[in-house]
Amino acid sequence: MLEHQTTTRVIYGDTDNMGQAYYGNYFRWFEIGRNEMFRSQGLAYKSVEERGIYLPVAEAHCKYHAAAQYDDVLVIETRLDTQVRGAVRFEYKIFRESDHTLIATGYTKHACLNGDGKVVRPPDFIKAVIERHRNALR
Amino acid sequence: MLEHQTTTRVIYGDTDNMGQAYYGNYFRWFEIGRNEMFRSQGLAYKSVEERGIYLPVAEAHCKYHAAAQYDDVLVIETRLDTQVRGAVRFEYKIFRESDHTLIATGYTKHACLNGDGKVVRPPDFIKAVIERHRNALR
Amino acid sequence: MLEHQTTTRVIYGDTDNMGQAYYGNYFRWFEIGRNEMFRSQGLAYKSVEERGIYLPVAEAHCKYHAAAQYDDVLVIETRLDTQVRGAVRFEYKIFRESDHTLIATGYTKHACLNGDGKVVRPPDFIKAVIERHRNALR
Amino acid sequence: MLEHQTTTRVIYGDTDNMGQAYYGNYFRWFEIGRNEMFRSQGLAYKSVEERGIYLPVAEAHCKYHAAAQYDDVLVIETRLDTQVRGAVRFEYKIFRESDHTLIATGYTKHACLNGDGKVVRPPDFIKAVIERHRNALR
Repeated sequence: MLEHQTTTRVIYGDTDNMGQAYYGNYFRWFEIGRNEMFRSQGLAYKSVEERGIYLPVAEAHCKYHAAAQYDDVLVIETRLDTQVRGAVRFEYKIFRESDHTLIATGYTKHACLNGDGKVVRPPDFIKAVIERHRNALR
Repeated sequence: MLEHQTTTRVIYGDTDNMGQAYYGNYFRWFEIGRNEMFRSQGLAYKSVEERGIYLPVAEAHCKYHAAAQYDDVLVIETRLDTQVRGAVRFEYKIFRESDHTLIATGYTKHACLNGDGKVVRPPDFIKAVIERHRNALR
Repeated sequence: MLEHQTTTRVIYGDTDNMGQAYYGNYFRWFEIGRNEMFRSQGLAYKSVEERGIYLPVAEAHCKYHAAAQYDDVLVIETRLDTQVRGAVRFEYKIFRESDHTLIATGYTKHACLNGDGKVVRPPDFIKAVIERHRNALR
Repeated sequence: MLEHQTTTRVIYGDTDNMGQAYYGNYFRWFEIGRNEMFRSQGLAYKSVEERGIYLPVAEAHCKYHAAAQYDDVLVIETRLDTQVRGAVRFEYKIFRESDHTLIATGYTKHACLNGDGKVVRPPDFIKAVIERHRNALR
């Protein structure tokens, strides 16, 4: 397994008038993806904050390949971009579980802030997660 | 004018698969109603918090009379229930602006907390808003 | 097991400025509860619609007992009110999984519409779910 | 006036645990921007759909420059990219109204579909809006 996977189900509250998931809600799924990916590495994002580090989103991008529809189970694949320095970057792929249709791809880039809101370099406990992830990807 | 009115427009992001506004999003509109009602009384809710008082929702209710649809302009009517003691209670009516159809009615009840999260009696600056509102309703 | 249970995790996108889940988002969790409860009875709500029956929310209510916070795993307990005729009514309890704190209670009442948007009596395949649920509760 | 402007106010429901607007909610504001921009050109997006044309989002991007906070009034500036052929592309800038701080920049790219969900070239009534916008920008 090269990438972390988690699933979520599309509810009515995710959909819109066009009968498919609202484009802004995909970013909720990206959040679920990175939350669970971090947790799977033994570091819940909540613990990151408890250590005084915050990772607000600096940039977000999504490409919509096919419509996610009500009641679809979606597979969210998340990987850390291990090449980026001074920031944390996640890449996402979302598939429909039933037929493996590619629904969306995207990324989010996160600044690393301390409790005073100042940009800092990713601390060692974050780098360790990236390192472990890099090794897992090899 | 007996009640405070403000308007909002239904966007795609508010709607769902059934082609109408998602039932949970009406509570966003209730929030807009009470925010603007307080502001119209010279006391933005933000200032309430700056004075160390928080009004988290303790109870929320909505009755859906007709479907709000994409691009509808909604009129949100908000009034304070001036009979309630020890808490703050808002009542809402939502109409479609174009044809005055009643869309929804509801209420929210709010506890009054201090900065430590303890329940307190509504302070004088809140009571003053309620009093002014009561006089305006006469 | 008297009631159907499912879980969901609070994400950043569910929370608000007060550091807890936004009051309107609890209705998303109620939706998850009733969706999974129906599915557990062998009748996904999607299939209900495919048979030409729609259950739009006519009334929704929530009482907030304790704050749901970021990263909490919530247990959503859903039961059908088997006494109601001519409509479908769900009752919900939300607990924090870690310490069993009661977070919220509420209900939703749903009209039963056919494809033309006319109110109809719950068809037999809905009544069968209610009946099975009643027997399970005995 | 080179670009279309509209405003919106950040509500509690837009914010998150970090005390600022949730990153996914900026896409709601982008939607408000393009809706109002089209309306200002005499063509509500609702009318676009009524003529059998749909503009689902194919790609969305946002760069977060500064945090939008509770109760901020945001100015959403929207312009059509008049160079793009075979699709419709909007560019957005969001400013805080009070101090003109740049909050976010981004874009959305939209496919042009007919009622059967087939990709079509933008019809003349869409091209006319783009043309009028191009002339206004000169």
